[in-house]
Amino acid sequence: MENINLFLEIIIAISVIGISFGIYLAKYVLSQKLPKGEAEEVSKAIQSGANAYLKRQFKTITPLVVVITIFLYITAPVKELALARSLAFVMGALFSSIIGTVGMNIATKANARVTQAANKGFKEAMVLAFRAGATTGMFTIGLGLLGATIIYSIFREKATEVLVGFGFGGSLLALFMRVGGGIYTKAADIGADLVGKVEKNIPEDDPRNAAVIADQVGDNVGDCAGMAADIFESYEVTLVAAMILGGITFGLPGVLFPLAVRALGIITSMIGILSVKPKGNTVSDGSRAIIKSFLISSIFSIAGFWYFSNSILHSSNPAIAATLGIVLAFVIFLLTDYATGNHAPVKNIAKQAQSGAATTILSGLVEGFSSTAWAIVVIGVTIIASFLIFNDPLEAAYGVALAGMGMLTTTGLIVSMDSFGPIADNAQGVAELAKMKGKILNILPKLDSIGNTTKATTKGFAIGSAVIAAVSLFESYMTDAGLSGINIATPYSFVGLLIGGAIPFLFSALSIKAVSESAYAVINEVRKQFKEIPGIMKGTTKPNYGKVVDLTTKAALSALATPAIIAITTPILVGLLLKAEGLGAFLAGSILSGQLLAVFMANAGGAWDNAKKMIEDGLYGGKGSDTHKAAVVGDTVGDPLKDTAGPAMNPLIKVINLVALLIAPIVKNQIHQTTTIIVSIILIITIITSLYRGYQKTL
Amino acid sequence: MENINLFLEIIIAISVIGISFGIYLAKYVLSQKLPKGEAEEVSKAIQSGANAYLKRQFKTITPLVVVITIFLYITAPVKELALARSLAFVMGALFSSIIGTVGMNIATKANARVTQAANKGFKEAMVLAFRAGATTGMFTIGLGLLGATIIYSIFREKATEVLVGFGFGGSLLALFMRVGGGIYTKAADIGADLVGKVEKNIPEDDPRNAAVIADQVGDNVGDCAGMAADIFESYEVTLVAAMILGGITFGLPGVLFPLAVRALGIITSMIGILSVKPKGNTVSDGSRAIIKSFLISSIFSIAGFWYFSNSILHSSNPAIAATLGIVLAFVIFLLTDYATGNHAPVKNIAKQAQSGAATTILSGLVEGFSSTAWAIVVIGVTIIASFLIFNDPLEAAYGVALAGMGMLTTTGLIVSMDSFGPIADNAQGVAELAKMKGKILNILPKLDSIGNTTKATTKGFAIGSAVIAAVSLFESYMTDAGLSGINIATPYSFVGLLIGGAIPFLFSALSIKAVSESAYAVINEVRKQFKEIPGIMKGTTKPNYGKVVDLTTKAALSALATPAIIAITTPILVGLLLKAEGLGAFLAGSILSGQLLAVFMANAGGAWDNAKKMIEDGLYGGKGSDTHKAAVVGDTVGDPLKDTAGPAMNPLIKVINLVALLIAPIVKNQIHQTTTIIVSIILIITIITSLYRGYQKTL
Repeated sequence: MENINLFLEIIIAISVIGISFGIYLAKYVLSQKLPKGEAEEVSKAIQSGANAYLKRQFKTITPLVVVITIFLYITAPVKELALARSLAFVMGALFSSIIGTVGMNIATKANARVTQAANKGFKEAMVLAFRAGATTGMFTIGLGLLGATIIYSIFREKATEVLVGFGFGGSLLALFMRVGGGIYTKAADIGADLVGKVEKNIPEDDPRNAAVIADQVGDNVGDCAGMAADIFESYEVTLVAAMILGGITFGLPGVLFPLAVRALGIITSMIGILSVKPKGNTVSDGSRAIIKSFLISSIFSIAGFWYFSNSILHSSNPAIAATLGIVLAFVIFLLTDYATGNHAPVKNIAKQAQSGAATTILSGLVEGFSSTAWAIVVIGVTIIASFLIFNDPLEAAYGVALAGMGMLTTTGLIVSMDSFGPIADNAQGVAELAKMKGKILNILPKLDSIGNTTKATTKGFAIGSAVIAAVSLFESYMTDAGLSGINIATPYSFVGLLIGGAIPFLFSALSIKAVSESAYAVINEVRKQFKEIPGIMKGTTKPNYGKVVDLTTKAALSALATPAIIAITTPILVGLLLKAEGLGAFLAGSILSGQLLAVFMANAGGAWDNAKKMIEDGLYGGKGSDTHKAAVVGDTVGDPLKDTAGPAMNPLIKVINLVALLIAPIVKNQIHQTTTIIVSIILIITIITSLYRGYQKTL
Repeated sequence: MENINLFLEIIIAISVIGISFGIYLAKYVLSQKLPKGEAEEVSKAIQSGANAYLKRQFKTITPLVVVITIFLYITAPVKELALARSLAFVMGALFSSIIGTVGMNIATKANARVTQAANKGFKEAMVLAFRAGATTGMFTIGLGLLGATIIYSIFREKATEVLVGFGFGGSLLALFMRVGGGIYTKAADIGADLVGKVEKNIPEDDPRNAAVIADQVGDNVGDCAGMAADIFESYEVTLVAAMILGGITFGLPGVLFPLAVRALGIITSMIGILSVKPKGNTVSDGSRAIIKSFLISSIFSIAGFWYFSNSILHSSNPAIAATLGIVLAFVIFLLTDYATGNHAPVKNIAKQAQSGAATTILSGLVEGFSSTAWAIVVIGVTIIASFLIFNDPLEAAYGVALAGMGMLTTTGLIVSMDSFGPIADNAQGVAELAKMKGKILNILPKLDSIGNTTKATTKGFAIGSAVIAAVSLFESYMTDAGLSGINIATPYSFVGLLIGGAIPFLFSALSIKAVSESAYAVINEVRKQFKEIPGIMKGTTKPNYGKVVDLTTKAALSALATPAIIAITTPILVGLLLKAEGLGAFLAGSILSGQLLAVFMANAGGAWDNAKKMIEDGLYGGKGSDTHKAAVVGDTVGDPLKDTAGPAMNPLIKVINLVALLIAPIVKNQIHQTTTIIVSIILIITIITSLYRGYQKTL
């Protein structure tokens, strides 16, 4: 027992080291020189916009968090853990908020500093931008491991219950950040482009455009805060699942191995982050440096898997399963890159753009649809392979969880890569808005281009890890609800499956609609400012950036309510009406269609985006040609798919599965008939009211 | 026993009456006056094109049918039924072919006659067109009931095995007709429009357009032959399922009730068909006449349900379940009409078209995505309600099957309504191509408009019935494979579920791609003819219509191979690799995502189509405005979704489930390991080769 305490203390120490490294990176970024004048002002405007968004978001969410905390306390199946579960929920929400807030603050403070660093050269700018992104990465893995280990240290065998609360807190925040941020970023983007580029014929990131700051803010709240919260959740959930299954199959060593793997991930992520140093000054040098760091970090991780696997569990099988997970991460990268990079699918879309917008859209649908099949085959092969490694069925479930663990060992680097995107993008924006001159105008677009690639490729990773996390939750639900299987041939289960499958479709519809509506509000405001303040166009008066930022914030957050209510209430309603088995089928349906839609939307959107870029680089007549116009339609359609609805699928399927897990004890011991009916009626009214409110807005 | 023989003889007699009524309708159509000259020529060209397509299609399919017949014979689990099952398969394929061939022949012979009847008036033209469509309707239900009853009469308790063969024969033909016809019709349509309307600025259905005959042929092979085969299959499958479940729960009376219901459907369809008589001369008079006939036929059917339910089964519960099915059919009509008719969703798309093609596409996606949720809730409520009527779980399964039976009681009318569409459309085409004059130019567009509505609304019915049919097959698979449930939490099942869900996405991608490629071939040929034969544009030389018809036929049929191979081989492969439970989950996944995609594609496509029509009728600037151009993009994107990929989902999920049912005995008693490996490798190579061939074509 003493040994275990020591072990857990070491794990806690390593997670603290991870957080400290994050703080070190943050200090490193802040110690860099900040350019004076215009650039500083622009950067401050972005910062205050981003903070205003987060502040209002937290204000909006707080009442809900309070209600759920109370709900969790009242409905706790094990009374003595009720308080702990509720507190863990608050802690999960808090940690997720801290990661988002700190990450975004560093990102928005880094952008101007990157423009300054670009004066020294490409390498310096790239290293700074990557380290700024890595702050978020290190906070994600450090806080994630710290929280889980502390809870485990206190509750040991009873930790599961409490860990689920912790995971749910993180999930709920992730849902809000992903969806709210996703709506915000695209509404501002579309609004800025449509009035600025299309109507007024002024370039992107032109300071005369009132939506230009909101656009920059959007990059941060969408890609940086949303993505980090999303992956934080998968990171947490797979750890919890592996610990539970490990405990059942191998006893204590089975619990310690996953913790060791996570601690290992912190060390190897640090190594990876520090090794990002481009060899030359081209875009491919930059990309290669990132891939190299990913490979270095992976090799160290794999070596660690084998060491811990043999020393803790006296078998190589767990190491094989975890290694498979890393291989999966890598293959998903390649597949995402194939679907959205300069390969056959994107080339095909660009070619089809020659015959107009309709064929552009159709070819994008074709490529997006087909890409789902490949993603699924790869995930399927990994699950079955890690299952086959072990002979015993229960050990095999542990194997699948370990594959998820292995995949998420690279979380630190993945989040860093993703956060690097908006920083590079913003640096470019700041330079243009502040009308900076010199060689940086050559360097910053290269960073932006690298960031676009990393943002696109990490999307596949986020989806894959969300699916594995959701599967883990689903397995836990089956255990907690006392189900040994689901007979989909019974009407309740079959209907549950159907309804579960429809939820991601409904959720996507709602979030795409929210983007259009919010964008519409932005467009009207920007138009109004141009009209009412003639000095803006001449460049003599500054537009009121703050007003657009404020308006986008309000629009995005008010559009959030309906989808969030649906995600939380439908599993409860289905559980009450269709019982435990029906709810299980509902979960399976939601994971299935959520995953398919997520891959479809991310890849179709990414491919349209790149097809447009290919044409802008001179293919088929280049910018301004009819082919380009058709490609722009594709890109505009793809934008809310890949940046709002697609990424929203990840937290959606995780929240649905977590809610089911939380109500599993209630569903299992069907509560009193009358109570069921009353609660169901209340839920149905809530859902219909919120859908109707959303519907009314569109008329 | 004697009583039963008499009963079966009466059922056979009624099915023969149904077929005879079909023949009577055909004769009635052929007895109508055929206009001479140009119109006759055009009509003959359409006929010969349509027959050429069918002929080549049957030639293409025959080898496959032979191979499968032999396969079915060899793999039969009950040796003494091996020959019967194989023969039933051939009979199913043959019946499906007969329905398609006869229906299409009457349809293509009716078009010119309808133009002639229009000289007398709107009512006369409408009645003739509807009766021509009803020929297909009566053949569908007459042959369907005849085949099933004959098989049951011969084999009695052992009939199941043989009936599955019969159903599979029909299914396979339906798959080919639906997909091949769907590709054909859209390739010709897009090809004709792009060169004619867009490039050459000549009107639709202009005789100078070389693709114009192919376009007319396409309407027939797509909507008439494809739809009839599709619904024939659902009609067959639900009957077989109800008979099996009825036998288990209520003994012989449980078998006889479904047969009585089907026979009832033949009589009430005849009443419905004869009652179609519009009261006035407007579009809404025509639509009202069709709805009225549907209601009359439904009321008679419901009355019959209650009579047979109480006299055969001495209970009203079966009647309630069957009535629920009719109500479901009606609610699905309303939902489809809401999603694709002149209501909020379509109005919203038209409104969004004002800001360009991108917002048109996005709003169509939003409306299509949300419509899936409602369709699923309605199907879910029906399934659960018909389940709750009975107390015993097994009886309840019978209740669900009876709901399907009730829904499909209206098959005769539904197929008539659907076939009415291409006939009305073609009549309008013939009149334009033959440059006919007079009052018919006022009447025919009205018929066309009514046909468009019936075509759109019957799509929802086809999807709903396909889902219910697939669920019945799925339940039979569970029984045959000896599964009491599927534990989706095991890796094999979970991976099966994921792969099953991806198949409809892959299949949709392939069929949309096939349309683009075939359309491309058509476009090139039409352009070439315009260029090489200058007389065409002047109107002095006729274009070579036959060449385009031939080319479209070849293109559509060659594009069919890959999706067909995937539909047949993946369930076998999954069954071998993932075992019985994995295959069960695969089926559930394919039904789920197939249904979601089918509703999404049908409704989004229908809504874009109608939004465009609304604008053409003068909304937001009317024809030629920028808003109209944006709406045209939406319509073009929607076309292959609603007419090719969407409808293909129905036979796809049914074929997948039937193949699984056929290999259930093999999967259950896992065959020798080595054989499994060899067969799996062969299947994987087949799938990859066919996908690769499809892929190469696009480069």
